[in-house]
Amino acid sequence: MEPREEERYHRLVEELKGRGIDPEEVIRRLKEQRLETPSWGYSDSGTRFAVFPQPGAARNVHERLQDAAEVHKLTGICPSVALHIPWDAPEDGDYKALKQEAEELGIQIGSINPNLFQDSDYRFGSLAHPHDRVRQKALAHVEECIEIMKTTGSTVLSLWLADGTDYPAQDDLRARKRRLEESLRQVYEALPKEARLLLEYKPFEPAFYHTDIADWGMAYTFAQKLGPQAQVLVDLGHHLHGANVEHIVAFLLDEGKLGGFHFNDRKYADDDLTSGSINPYQVFLIYKEIVLVEDELGPQPIAYMIDQSHITKPKIEAMIQTVLQLQRLYAKALLIDRKALREAQDACDAVACEEILQQAFYTDVDPLLRRVRRELGCPPDPLQAYRQSGYFDRIVQERRKPASAQQGWTAAQIQ
Amino acid sequence: MEPREEERYHRLVEELKGRGIDPEEVIRRLKEQRLETPSWGYSDSGTRFAVFPQPGAARNVHERLQDAAEVHKLTGICPSVALHIPWDAPEDGDYKALKQEAEELGIQIGSINPNLFQDSDYRFGSLAHPHDRVRQKALAHVEECIEIMKTTGSTVLSLWLADGTDYPAQDDLRARKRRLEESLRQVYEALPKEARLLLEYKPFEPAFYHTDIADWGMAYTFAQKLGPQAQVLVDLGHHLHGANVEHIVAFLLDEGKLGGFHFNDRKYADDDLTSGSINPYQVFLIYKEIVLVEDELGPQPIAYMIDQSHITKPKIEAMIQTVLQLQRLYAKALLIDRKALREAQDACDAVACEEILQQAFYTDVDPLLRRVRRELGCPPDPLQAYRQSGYFDRIVQERRKPASAQQGWTAAQIQ
Amino acid sequence: MEPREEERYHRLVEELKGRGIDPEEVIRRLKEQRLETPSWGYSDSGTRFAVFPQPGAARNVHERLQDAAEVHKLTGICPSVALHIPWDAPEDGDYKALKQEAEELGIQIGSINPNLFQDSDYRFGSLAHPHDRVRQKALAHVEECIEIMKTTGSTVLSLWLADGTDYPAQDDLRARKRRLEESLRQVYEALPKEARLLLEYKPFEPAFYHTDIADWGMAYTFAQKLGPQAQVLVDLGHHLHGANVEHIVAFLLDEGKLGGFHFNDRKYADDDLTSGSINPYQVFLIYKEIVLVEDELGPQPIAYMIDQSHITKPKIEAMIQTVLQLQRLYAKALLIDRKALREAQDACDAVACEEILQQAFYTDVDPLLRRVRRELGCPPDPLQAYRQSGYFDRIVQERRKPASAQQGWTAAQIQ
Amino acid sequence: MEPREEERYHRLVEELKGRGIDPEEVIRRLKEQRLETPSWGYSDSGTRFAVFPQPGAARNVHERLQDAAEVHKLTGICPSVALHIPWDAPEDGDYKALKQEAEELGIQIGSINPNLFQDSDYRFGSLAHPHDRVRQKALAHVEECIEIMKTTGSTVLSLWLADGTDYPAQDDLRARKRRLEESLRQVYEALPKEARLLLEYKPFEPAFYHTDIADWGMAYTFAQKLGPQAQVLVDLGHHLHGANVEHIVAFLLDEGKLGGFHFNDRKYADDDLTSGSINPYQVFLIYKEIVLVEDELGPQPIAYMIDQSHITKPKIEAMIQTVLQLQRLYAKALLIDRKALREAQDACDAVACEEILQQAFYTDVDPLLRRVRRELGCPPDPLQAYRQSGYFDRIVQERRKPASAQQGWTAAQIQ
Repeated sequence: MEPREEERYHRLVEELKGRGIDPEEVIRRLKEQRLETPSWGYSDSGTRFAVFPQPGAARNVHERLQDAAEVHKLTGICPSVALHIPWDAPEDGDYKALKQEAEELGIQIGSINPNLFQDSDYRFGSLAHPHDRVRQKALAHVEECIEIMKTTGSTVLSLWLADGTDYPAQDDLRARKRRLEESLRQVYEALPKEARLLLEYKPFEPAFYHTDIADWGMAYTFAQKLGPQAQVLVDLGHHLHGANVEHIVAFLLDEGKLGGFHFNDRKYADDDLTSGSINPYQVFLIYKEIVLVEDELGPQPIAYMIDQSHITKPKIEAMIQTVLQLQRLYAKALLIDRKALREAQDACDAVACEEILQQAFYTDVDPLLRRVRRELGCPPDPLQAYRQSGYFDRIVQERRKPASAQQGWTAAQIQ
Repeated sequence: MEPREEERYHRLVEELKGRGIDPEEVIRRLKEQRLETPSWGYSDSGTRFAVFPQPGAARNVHERLQDAAEVHKLTGICPSVALHIPWDAPEDGDYKALKQEAEELGIQIGSINPNLFQDSDYRFGSLAHPHDRVRQKALAHVEECIEIMKTTGSTVLSLWLADGTDYPAQDDLRARKRRLEESLRQVYEALPKEARLLLEYKPFEPAFYHTDIADWGMAYTFAQKLGPQAQVLVDLGHHLHGANVEHIVAFLLDEGKLGGFHFNDRKYADDDLTSGSINPYQVFLIYKEIVLVEDELGPQPIAYMIDQSHITKPKIEAMIQTVLQLQRLYAKALLIDRKALREAQDACDAVACEEILQQAFYTDVDPLLRRVRRELGCPPDPLQAYRQSGYFDRIVQERRKPASAQQGWTAAQIQ
Repeated sequence: MEPREEERYHRLVEELKGRGIDPEEVIRRLKEQRLETPSWGYSDSGTRFAVFPQPGAARNVHERLQDAAEVHKLTGICPSVALHIPWDAPEDGDYKALKQEAEELGIQIGSINPNLFQDSDYRFGSLAHPHDRVRQKALAHVEECIEIMKTTGSTVLSLWLADGTDYPAQDDLRARKRRLEESLRQVYEALPKEARLLLEYKPFEPAFYHTDIADWGMAYTFAQKLGPQAQVLVDLGHHLHGANVEHIVAFLLDEGKLGGFHFNDRKYADDDLTSGSINPYQVFLIYKEIVLVEDELGPQPIAYMIDQSHITKPKIEAMIQTVLQLQRLYAKALLIDRKALREAQDACDAVACEEILQQAFYTDVDPLLRRVRRELGCPPDPLQAYRQSGYFDRIVQERRKPASAQQGWTAAQIQ
Repeated sequence: MEPREEERYHRLVEELKGRGIDPEEVIRRLKEQRLETPSWGYSDSGTRFAVFPQPGAARNVHERLQDAAEVHKLTGICPSVALHIPWDAPEDGDYKALKQEAEELGIQIGSINPNLFQDSDYRFGSLAHPHDRVRQKALAHVEECIEIMKTTGSTVLSLWLADGTDYPAQDDLRARKRRLEESLRQVYEALPKEARLLLEYKPFEPAFYHTDIADWGMAYTFAQKLGPQAQVLVDLGHHLHGANVEHIVAFLLDEGKLGGFHFNDRKYADDDLTSGSINPYQVFLIYKEIVLVEDELGPQPIAYMIDQSHITKPKIEAMIQTVLQLQRLYAKALLIDRKALREAQDACDAVACEEILQQAFYTDVDPLLRRVRRELGCPPDPLQAYRQSGYFDRIVQERRKPASAQQGWTAAQIQ
């Protein structure tokens, strides 16, 4: 650590102590922060209008594991990677080898994400489809994913369903609900003992009239009926405008049903932008809820997963930038003077509550984060380190695609 | 019935039979439709910017009962009136007499609505307030309302809470939830055996950062924990933009937790406009869900309540117009060819589903409604009958207010 | 016309006369209604998650012209088809032959739609791109489209730009605006004398932070500066929640700047569902504004274009269903008793205004529409006629695709 | 300045110089920042559900001037106060004396805000009302306000209209637009030469179907037609969900039509919360646009006005808190490294753009702000200084209200 960095760090430590915050405790918790990056965040993606291929984008699961390992190497807090099946199926189907490949790269296989939306059979639904044949096919795929969990040691089945309808009365809403409940029951029963089923909700897209698991309340209801291994997954982009996400998080935490996050940011719909790029204060408020529960009950078994995949930023840089944002905003939440806040809350002093909150939010945590990274054996500025590492130039060279694959999606797009 | 009306009716009957719809069954169910009008819908109201007093607006509970009775006399399907306490407290506190007064006017006392938002003590909450003193005061008021229920024979306690916060961290979200749960538990235990507690949710207003019961999922969770006498109340204006209300209705119906409605319409927030004035198709889709459940399980114990109170339309006309809209849209829902719809749904034929749905929606049900009204002993065109009745002129004369009361809200309003 | 149909028609005519509506005038205006169908509405499409290929979907411009001609044959009011360049470029580049091909099928080439969003060069913009090279490339493409207009006789250049940014400060907002203005100026100057440039606006997607032409106000400002040949294009799905589209339509009509529509419906974002499937009353209210202007000034030079492209309904059926909805809702708007409405408006009688409006909306216009269709030489029930025509079975046979093209979009999709 | 504060300041100065930011320039611009506080922000207010009277709330214009002066004394950047007529009309109608009273308190009379929404005559509109009598009354009130401007030296007429309709077809949209244009023309002609007319827009509330000036585009169109003295007023709470306010600001700046702001914050509708309490990053992005224009063209004639009035926070504390937030966020915007940003933008390097932006946003500007305040002769921590000043205790004693006035709004409120 350079003398100037050291000096800044010590000044911050003094300041925090003055506020009654224990810097060692903050550093300890920051070192325990975990974020899981998604394999699909390293590959080409797009909007419904176009896919713009990126140089160096990962072309297969092996390259995705390499990129995830690179992000972990630089940040120190991303030791697992989420897989999406079948996108991440190895050519030879050998998941045991895949697990070992990941471990050799210094990471683990994290959550397993079934794909129940891309096969033409799923045009009118998967686990809630009106036809038994399609439901059975979908169930078989999920069961295959559960087998993969067993092989790879994954303990999280992360289930996002595109199921829904596009037009009023296209299907019977209650019949769909019942079919879905029955399918989920079968999934739940197939789960290994130590594993969790995380149910994701989403108000719309790709279903444009109703989505079978449309909001946290529906995911919660299903999870509640299934049992303790089923919980709710909160994707920050999956809410109607105005929804108070931190309130939902607090409510689910109190119910013991918050299973995990899909972190990303958005201004409009499910935009999948990098975290904290649009509304960093919201992320801070969410972490505040987690910090309060951790204060009370210790570390929580929450799966902190990133789910972003957009075209504007280079894939790996975008991932590092999100990780650093989430690290910074968790750090700021840890600096809230909780004792003073409780007192101001008891006094119904909304002005003081905000001052306390924003004192933490506006504190420059950079010295703290640099310390944490150094202690984790990482560069103090991971993004700069990545840019200087030569990794990107190398993958651009290695991952050239045949021209035919560069064209993206050429069929009838939609205005 | 005039010959021409008779003729139109018989032609419609023929047409319906051709579609496999039993007109007698439709008429029977329309005659059983019930809508409860709200006492506060007959009095002056306003926005936060101004109250525009209306000539003839009811000044006290007695005038409100008269107006509710007039609406029932003209429509035949509004036999009960919701009371709001203490706005509707009789001067002498004699609710037994009030009950009798209503019965003499030909109506019943319906749901009882406590007021937990107007007293200055409730500025930071009522049942979820951080201070025990305020929570106890709020509980005492609700218990007083439960006593009123016993005296008036009301079986529905309709609970809307303004509880929430206006600024992040103004209070602890989970602590509020726990206090609210505890308060609701006490309310529930005080309920008479045959009565129901309906929990209303609302995303915002008057609370502007978080509302303690913000959505159906929270109301449902609380109701679920309380027990079978607790259910959810759906106010059509209490949703974020894009929320699929008919889906929520179907979900709650399937869970046995749909306790009732507050009918009104809106384009933006909780605008409290008359039903069907902005989006009549949505109301039709909601009634479709109810019709489907009725087909399966018979009449449902749902409290169909109107909650509107706006300044543009004269109070009684506005109420009649809403009642006629809800009657029309329920009628249209009853004309859906359910057999054909199920077949089209099984075939995933979204085009046919929509044709079947809209065939019902676009059918002119006027002859049917006139028949129903006549059979109920009401005028076939209630709005016209009201305008010709002289009732309005009479109340304008009788209900003159002292000049001082005409000024509305004069203090610092807000741009 | 069958006797029963005849009888229903005459009864409706009597009723309308009783309301002071001239049925002949209504029929005349319905026969003059025009709707332009989009070539891309006949081809496979999808969401960002998947493309579900449909049997029989058109594979090239020739098949799209055939399908558009089929829709016109059945409905009688869709004599033109919008082209999207380069999707609709003929193999040999011979647009003169393409024009003739359309005419032989009984239709015309309508608006020309440049594609400025799919080429990788447009990742950071087209006409507003920071780099001159890309702007010039985009301009050259638009100029090519203007040449196609001259060859095909098209008089409408329909310009939708995906230009925008995904992250705050990704580019300078005012610099982009100036570059865009300059590019539009060049486009405008290249327009043929009799042609119009229609500027489409859209709040978001694919740009997720800001869109350079984000709302009608921006499109209007650009159009105003360009001159009388530039006008605004209103796509019903391109508004934020709560926007009053009929108000925007009325405002633009009054400014002489309403150039055309893209009709479709949506519940959430830009869902591109068939018209009137989600909120038919809104379409009725939009047509009301048009009817009022037509009453005053005669037919308006508005391009009534359909822009839908979704996966749930078969392409041609979806198009017919939309056309029939728009015909029905225009008919209903024509039945509004404008004289009575004006009187009620002058009296500030909101209750009567709504009664008059909904009397028209709830009138069964089916007999009228059947008459109009017969007079246009079309089947009275075009959707049924299409289903019975054998056209679909034929194209399913003819338009088999190679297996490789069936797979849709296989690269990294996004949760 | 204490040694530690001095030390922190110098470290920040060094850091900024390292980034190529001139600290003197930043301090100069911060000292020139101006914010106008609203008289109505010092008085009791409420939601439509309740007014909760606050101890010490100002009861008349004189007390409001005192409070505004107190805020200016503590912050140094709030030298003017907006008046709302007739709320702020002096008892004797002597505005010359009122001007002098303000000046003796050390402040100026700022913008004048006519009230065209509270009189019962305005129930169906004011400047756009269907009846000439009401429009003339409204015009006369605005002309009275213009006379007040002349007497008080105010140069800004801030016009917010509640005009609109609550139900479809309640009035003719285009007729209203024309009446409004004609009325605004008359207002504009009555303006003094050096004065500006600022047109405020708002999507809804209190009008619930359409608002005559619903968005920036309508305000802009009217302003454009009126002439150079008419400009647009942006209230941060007056947008539909998802609207990109900083884009609108940039667009209006580029058109020379940004007349001023009403600062406040909101999560849902027009919540009138204190600035930066919900989404501070948005305010930062808005100030960024202003900084960029100032860099180019020097100080802009923008009226920076606060418009907040809510019940949770004590009035004066809420105002100080907002002022401090706006000062902090303007300071952060001034720290953006514009040269580096332009280079990153030219390189389409969205990752670097965000790093540069957030480097500024996350810089601790507290030392800078304390310096600015000291140089302005103000306490370095104005909120703490206010709390210690005894001002609040004094006004609580002085401003006791008669019990009758404590009851707030007692008539029929609305669920």
